[in-house]
Amino acid sequence: MNPIETLSEIFAHFPGIGPRQAKRFVYYLLSRDRNTVESFIEAVKKLKAETLQCTECKRYFNKSGSQMPICPICADDNRDNSLLMIVPRDADFEAVERAGSYKGYYFILGGSLPILEKEPERRIRIKELMAKVKKNQDSIKEIILAMNANAEGENTEIFIKETLKDAGIPFSTLGRGLSTGSELEYADPDTLKNALLHRTK
Amino acid sequence: MNPIETLSEIFAHFPGIGPRQAKRFVYYLLSRDRNTVESFIEAVKKLKAETLQCTECKRYFNKSGSQMPICPICADDNRDNSLLMIVPRDADFEAVERAGSYKGYYFILGGSLPILEKEPERRIRIKELMAKVKKNQDSIKEIILAMNANAEGENTEIFIKETLKDAGIPFSTLGRGLSTGSELEYADPDTLKNALLHRTK
Amino acid sequence: MNPIETLSEIFAHFPGIGPRQAKRFVYYLLSRDRNTVESFIEAVKKLKAETLQCTECKRYFNKSGSQMPICPICADDNRDNSLLMIVPRDADFEAVERAGSYKGYYFILGGSLPILEKEPERRIRIKELMAKVKKNQDSIKEIILAMNANAEGENTEIFIKETLKDAGIPFSTLGRGLSTGSELEYADPDTLKNALLHRTK
Amino acid sequence: MNPIETLSEIFAHFPGIGPRQAKRFVYYLLSRDRNTVESFIEAVKKLKAETLQCTECKRYFNKSGSQMPICPICADDNRDNSLLMIVPRDADFEAVERAGSYKGYYFILGGSLPILEKEPERRIRIKELMAKVKKNQDSIKEIILAMNANAEGENTEIFIKETLKDAGIPFSTLGRGLSTGSELEYADPDTLKNALLHRTK
Repeated sequence: MNPIETLSEIFAHFPGIGPRQAKRFVYYLLSRDRNTVESFIEAVKKLKAETLQCTECKRYFNKSGSQMPICPICADDNRDNSLLMIVPRDADFEAVERAGSYKGYYFILGGSLPILEKEPERRIRIKELMAKVKKNQDSIKEIILAMNANAEGENTEIFIKETLKDAGIPFSTLGRGLSTGSELEYADPDTLKNALLHRTK
Repeated sequence: MNPIETLSEIFAHFPGIGPRQAKRFVYYLLSRDRNTVESFIEAVKKLKAETLQCTECKRYFNKSGSQMPICPICADDNRDNSLLMIVPRDADFEAVERAGSYKGYYFILGGSLPILEKEPERRIRIKELMAKVKKNQDSIKEIILAMNANAEGENTEIFIKETLKDAGIPFSTLGRGLSTGSELEYADPDTLKNALLHRTK
Repeated sequence: MNPIETLSEIFAHFPGIGPRQAKRFVYYLLSRDRNTVESFIEAVKKLKAETLQCTECKRYFNKSGSQMPICPICADDNRDNSLLMIVPRDADFEAVERAGSYKGYYFILGGSLPILEKEPERRIRIKELMAKVKKNQDSIKEIILAMNANAEGENTEIFIKETLKDAGIPFSTLGRGLSTGSELEYADPDTLKNALLHRTK
Repeated sequence: MNPIETLSEIFAHFPGIGPRQAKRFVYYLLSRDRNTVESFIEAVKKLKAETLQCTECKRYFNKSGSQMPICPICADDNRDNSLLMIVPRDADFEAVERAGSYKGYYFILGGSLPILEKEPERRIRIKELMAKVKKNQDSIKEIILAMNANAEGENTEIFIKETLKDAGIPFSTLGRGLSTGSELEYADPDTLKNALLHRTK
């Protein structure tokens, strides 16, 4: 296989990329000058070299000099250690942190579970989550299951609740209601029930 | 203008219909036999003849023999008269009623207010709403503003609150949160804050 | 069934309309005043009363006083009677006539044939087409099969060619090539081959 | 700027990629093991090292050992040297070559010209094209302008015709007609006129 095809195939595994766009990426790189491509290679190398995975929450963060494998949020003693929020991915963590109202700690699950998944531990960091919960069993008073509001998210919730039930810590899930932009007429009964129940006075 | 064009133009004013689809409707009717078209005309006539607009909530309902211009919901004494929910349109009323958990009364506003609308009373039934609230001022303890979760909905909320403030009845709005199907990563900060605030334990 | 539902069901059979939009049409009519609805009923009545189906090409046209069941195009002796173009629907006829370069006669087939259709004569006017071709066998020198460029169109072409083969008149099909707006990269091999073959010098 | 953000910004310049998907690419790479990322870096390096730009047609090709900067198609004496097809990009060349019926030579323009572009020579390889045409002036009998069927494509055609007019070689453009999948009703007049003109008998 020639380098154009080799690289096309690698790009075709990137999330959301099909073979045609993968090919476009290759031609895009070919049409850049040497410096641009070298900066790109450099950035990929640095990404691996300067990014650590937090041993506490499993998210990726820039180590910025330090060798301590704990991210700034997990290292921050001022956050509320009675709350642990479980989110599917790094991007979900970023969305919640941007919203700005959550002050507890996080755990990045690494994905979610499709219905009937046979090997859950290959899809999500369930063992690491169990260890994390066990270690902090005394302080955690609520585990917030912040999953996507779809079938995979619900399936993941059920699996985590079942797996962690012996820890004896109460679970909560994010409130359902009208997302910004949604219209009553097209809302499903569940969303409407919750929107009514959680109405703001 | 010939009848094909006349009717096309009428259909082109139907909600969501452009000139091409309007033309298709006309050819569709032309290709039906005489009976089908007569049933259609009959159904339109009956619609006007047998449907009443409820004098209480302004929604359209089938009068089914009775001449009483009050719909079955407004006529039902077993509903909770301390709650009045204001919805934009008949279809929104249907969605809430289908969800099944609301037991109060309704008022159909007839639409919503675009930002900077100069003649609100031409867009929505604000005078009828004021009269309705005044008439039931003693029983209503909460006005639920069930608007769409978009700019027009919020604008309508502000306008109604301002217009009805002298009635001294508390307002509530539907809870924001994750609609079914929505993903954390794409949720806006407001939705996430509310989803966190209204988390279900 | 009440009139709201009866009429919703009729609208739900209109081309491209689902149950929700059908309901919206009904509420739209309910919210119009009496005059508007009566104009609508009147327009539907007139459509049937003042529109004739041309006995020659089967298209619908406004009879405008005359009782002659032949449309202005079929009645026009200045057109080229050696050409007969077969199009699926009235809207396709209109598109070709708008393009302005065709000077022959038309036949409106009334639809197209899905693959494996068991009763072709219920879908398309194949018998009427056979009669038309037989009647004009001496003058017609070319039958242009102007079908949509998709599987149903090709299936219809094959069926017509087979059915009319005994007439001994040559068939032609519309040229394939790049439609306005299409991009080389996404064009299929057939389209590209034809675009190359029919290149304009 | 930390490496996650640096690389996100680079990915955000890839064709068709916005900031969110760029971030996803970074997290995707972070979640891969060391080997996968090294293979990726290796493939990018090889791409530059083992791919040459053909000095004749300007397309990128795998040099596979040879140091000759001429691609296999330009080096193939059996192709028809009376035809030169100008295509916007490498992917367009691939589409035409896949279609299989063209046997002449190619020139990759490197893009197309937006209306009112002030510096055409920065957008497309117009100077290289002029040199190529001059060099082969005696053999080329037809220049096929295989541009996309849109405004930019037409603008590019006009520009090339004007620029190369002194060469005295006739131009042709790809035939317009119905692309696979297109429907008569939605076809523009130009497409229909051409489809009629180039009908296949």
